[in-house]
Amino acid sequence: MLPASAGSAGFALDPRLEADTLPVGDLTLSCVLLLNDARFPWLVLVPRRADAIELTDLAEAEAEALMREIRVTARVMLELAKPDKINVAALGNRVPQLHVHVIGRFRSDPAWPAPVWGVGQPQPYPDHAGATLAERAAALFAAA
Amino acid sequence: MLPASAGSAGFALDPRLEADTLPVGDLTLSCVLLLNDARFPWLVLVPRRADAIELTDLAEAEAEALMREIRVTARVMLELAKPDKINVAALGNRVPQLHVHVIGRFRSDPAWPAPVWGVGQPQPYPDHAGATLAERAAALFAAA
Repeated sequence: MLPASAGSAGFALDPRLEADTLPVGDLTLSCVLLLNDARFPWLVLVPRRADAIELTDLAEAEAEALMREIRVTARVMLELAKPDKINVAALGNRVPQLHVHVIGRFRSDPAWPAPVWGVGQPQPYPDHAGATLAERAAALFAAA
Repeated sequence: MLPASAGSAGFALDPRLEADTLPVGDLTLSCVLLLNDARFPWLVLVPRRADAIELTDLAEAEAEALMREIRVTARVMLELAKPDKINVAALGNRVPQLHVHVIGRFRSDPAWPAPVWGVGQPQPYPDHAGATLAERAAALFAAA
């Protein structure tokens, strides 16, 4: 994890994102969260920029930083879960605060080959498993 | 539209992407396609890099270029269709060739607030409407 950058004045994590996730740590631009759904290895990046909704709301340098962080997160996901495919998406239809999903997908997962959204119900991790996975992800980010 | 860059040796557009879309033109890195589904204003960027599947398969400078092109495409979409929200996604579960969806979403569209994939059946544009929309998109890219 890198130290948080300046420029995050007024940023507060959306309470729905906070409720559905476990914290992993902070990259230069973004908070990293682990979605609390054991069916899919699923990280979420949230740029700490108040009022950002669309990718076009970021400054050019912030957008470049976000692409770097998406790619680092994809590499962490490949090492963390060894998925068959990575899905990356910024949707925001329900939670407008700009956030980017980085999801590890398996040909054996319950949604494949469809996207994960709207399929069945989330299955929260057992507490110890969720905490361990978030710690392992944090260690991989630190080493990336 | 900008001239195609070098480095696209061996690239060929996936035949499924080609079959489902109308060509808009070429940006520096990516082909721009209009998905032939009148239910949603939907552009697709395909980086002309043979064998690229994940975002991590691009070189750093290519990834930066792709982020610039995603943001230009989002701005074109905002002007083209004036949507309520933009959805951006790189999934690739069915078509592995790296491609990025930039979809204009409306609160009134048939999938809102769910993602568009897997909802109902595509409704191809009438020929004249699809061609006109692709031309209008190309003009907006040229002016961007």
